[in-house]
Amino acid sequence: MKYCSACAYPLSLQIPPDDTRLRHVCGQCGVIHYQNPKMVVGSIPLWDTGDKAQVLLCRRAIEPRYGFWTLPAGFMENSETTAEAALRETVEEAGAHIELQSLFSMLNVPHVDQVHLYYRARLVDLDFAAGVESLEVRLFTEAEIPWNEIAFATVSHTLKFFFADLASVRAGQCFGFHSLDINRPESTIK
Amino acid sequence: MKYCSACAYPLSLQIPPDDTRLRHVCGQCGVIHYQNPKMVVGSIPLWDTGDKAQVLLCRRAIEPRYGFWTLPAGFMENSETTAEAALRETVEEAGAHIELQSLFSMLNVPHVDQVHLYYRARLVDLDFAAGVESLEVRLFTEAEIPWNEIAFATVSHTLKFFFADLASVRAGQCFGFHSLDINRPESTIK
Repeated sequence: MKYCSACAYPLSLQIPPDDTRLRHVCGQCGVIHYQNPKMVVGSIPLWDTGDKAQVLLCRRAIEPRYGFWTLPAGFMENSETTAEAALRETVEEAGAHIELQSLFSMLNVPHVDQVHLYYRARLVDLDFAAGVESLEVRLFTEAEIPWNEIAFATVSHTLKFFFADLASVRAGQCFGFHSLDINRPESTIK
Repeated sequence: MKYCSACAYPLSLQIPPDDTRLRHVCGQCGVIHYQNPKMVVGSIPLWDTGDKAQVLLCRRAIEPRYGFWTLPAGFMENSETTAEAALRETVEEAGAHIELQSLFSMLNVPHVDQVHLYYRARLVDLDFAAGVESLEVRLFTEAEIPWNEIAFATVSHTLKFFFADLASVRAGQCFGFHSLDINRPESTIK
C-alpha cells in the first residue's frame, strides 16, 4: 500500500492520535487506511450412509498448494453472511448440493491475517462436480484421507476434529465447536 | 476506492476473468483490489458472586452511538487472534482484568460487511476504569441493563442469549454457542 485510494497522494506510516499502531495515513486528504484480517469460510460436506461416513474434498486447480486436497472454502465476500459464504464456496468449488448445519471450527492463522471457519454440512445427493478452481472432487472415508496431501493446516485440523466428533456422535454424543490457533508459518490461502 | 494503492492509477470496476463479481481493478499494474468483511471482536465480562451476576458495559465516548452502552469490542487487527483481539479491546475500553473463556456468539451483519464475535470472560477483580473510547464503565445485573440505550443489536442479542444461558447454567446446564444474522439496517460500528 503506497498511494491513497481516495486521492492518489503517497501514503506515510504514522500512529494516528488516540491510536497505538502504525497505519497508512494520507498526508493530503487525511484518510487512514486500516488493514484487517480476512475470513475464509467453507463447509465439511458429509455423505453418511450409517455404516460408512465420507467427506467431500476438492483437489486444488490454483496456487497456492496446486494439486493438494482441501475442503471447499474461500474468502468471504462483502454483503454476505458466513453461512452464505460457506454455501457459495461449496457450490463454486465442488458443484455440491448441501444442507448447511452448525458452525464446527474456527481456526486463527494470525501470521497470514486470516480466520478460517468451517460449517458442518449434509450432502443432499451425489451429483457434484469440480468447479473451475478444482481439478477433481471426491468422497473420502477417514481411512482414505490423504493426510500428507492436505493443502492447509486449518483443513487437516478440522478434519481430525470432525472424525473424532463423528465417533463420539456414533456413541450418542453431540458434535462440538472447535477453536484453534495455528501459530507456526506454513502454506495457507493467500 | 478511486485510485490504485500500488501505483496511483485510476481504478475501474470490472469482473475479472474466472470471477463473478465487480472488483476495483487497476488498468495499469493489473492489481485487483478485493474488499472483504471485517471482524468486530469483544467480550462479555462477568462478575458472578453466586447470588448476583453482573456484566460489565461501557458507555461510548465516540460515534457512532455516542453515549450508548456496549460490551467492550472493536475491530480485529492484523497479526492477532480473535481471542487476543477480545482481550485487547476489553483492556483498552474498560481497563478490565479478565480471564477469557469460550466463544459465545457470532453475529453476521451483512449490510455493513461485518461479523461480530463475543467471548465469555470472567472478571478477575473490580479494578476497571473507562478507556479513551468510553465515558464510563459499570456493572449491570440483568434487571439493570438499559435495553433502550444499548448501542448495537449485536450487543443486545448477545446479552439476551447470555442471561438466558446463565439461567440454564444455574439449573445445571452448559453455556451454548449462539449464531444469528442481523439483516435489517440499523446502527452499528462503522
